[in-house]
Amino acid sequence: MPIIHKIIEVETSEGISIFNITPQIDEFLQDTGIKNGQVLVFSRHTTTALAINENEERLLEDVKVYLRKLAPETDKYLHNDLHLRVVPEDEPMNAHSHLMSMTLSTSEVVPIVEGKLALGTWQSVLFFDLDGPRKRTVFLQISGEY
Amino acid sequence: MPIIHKIIEVETSEGISIFNITPQIDEFLQDTGIKNGQVLVFSRHTTTALAINENEERLLEDVKVYLRKLAPETDKYLHNDLHLRVVPEDEPMNAHSHLMSMTLSTSEVVPIVEGKLALGTWQSVLFFDLDGPRKRTVFLQISGEY
Amino acid sequence: MPIIHKIIEVETSEGISIFNITPQIDEFLQDTGIKNGQVLVFSRHTTTALAINENEERLLEDVKVYLRKLAPETDKYLHNDLHLRVVPEDEPMNAHSHLMSMTLSTSEVVPIVEGKLALGTWQSVLFFDLDGPRKRTVFLQISGEY
Repeated sequence: MPIIHKIIEVETSEGISIFNITPQIDEFLQDTGIKNGQVLVFSRHTTTALAINENEERLLEDVKVYLRKLAPETDKYLHNDLHLRVVPEDEPMNAHSHLMSMTLSTSEVVPIVEGKLALGTWQSVLFFDLDGPRKRTVFLQISGEY
Repeated sequence: MPIIHKIIEVETSEGISIFNITPQIDEFLQDTGIKNGQVLVFSRHTTTALAINENEERLLEDVKVYLRKLAPETDKYLHNDLHLRVVPEDEPMNAHSHLMSMTLSTSEVVPIVEGKLALGTWQSVLFFDLDGPRKRTVFLQISGEY
Repeated sequence: MPIIHKIIEVETSEGISIFNITPQIDEFLQDTGIKNGQVLVFSRHTTTALAINENEERLLEDVKVYLRKLAPETDKYLHNDLHLRVVPEDEPMNAHSHLMSMTLSTSEVVPIVEGKLALGTWQSVLFFDLDGPRKRTVFLQISGEY
């Protein structure tokens, strides 16, 4: 069974930014020619995450508000006491971003049927940077049969 | 390696309703005859979700209260300003349901060992409709060896 | 395609305790000799969970505070009315632990590339006991090619 991977790059924006990466996943799927199988989507940073949901711009703003309510940046966090940790000079104070990441997903597996992602009508694969701006990567792995 | 899928249907109730779909997954597993492998369970709507936990009726009520506390239906959400979006006439105001969905899971992978789901003693695969009542579907994909 | 599993054991501490199980996963991977594929990590209890994030001790304390804020142990939960349920004598009052578990993950899939876990630089696979102390198990399944 072929198992093929690809790393995609995303340049993100300040604070929380959300990207619909379904087109890149779909393009990779077409390149592989796999007809029946799975795509593993894997977020490779501790302050990024995934969700599979509706790519509607106003909803994406609601999600940002929601995440900031759950894990406010201005709360006291032990991880942000940088003087008590051994860290590089440019270490960000981003405990809230880690907490948001753990609330969302790191790995998602999407089925492939007849050469297409078997997503529901309104579903997109969304990539979240929770501590931007940065250059980020997402790992894709497709396995299945031709 | 065989990769076999099945779509199951669930008729849901008003608001949040939760269904133990383990029996349907198990029945599908027995039909395939796979002895060693995985079941991918995939929620196909943006206001449904999955969790693997205890199917205890009082706990399921607690989960509903918990989700409503995290994402109250009565909060202001941009996604609910239907007059600012291009939507069908019967579009629901369901931003809270999307947020609940992203807090739970869209894809879960359950191992298969000796022809059985390798769930822990108290674990069931739970399907959540967060914006019912509707007819919903869940995608199952089994891969492995006989 | 080989599909090989292993169950690892973790002895946990009072309340919430968090363990970096990446070394055990990596050791299992080396034992299998798989070069290209996936590890499925599966939490087998309804009050344990997984997250893939940074194994930094102060952050792990922040996560505990965060989970206790989302689902306080002292809130009223129907699941904790033990006199209304048929339960063993030593049944714990742990509704909050179930809610925390559903907020985190039960299944995570980590890609394997060139014989190594394709985790990002700061990522570790973290196992949470949310209702310790207990003897717990985590299920690992590796599939792929040599």
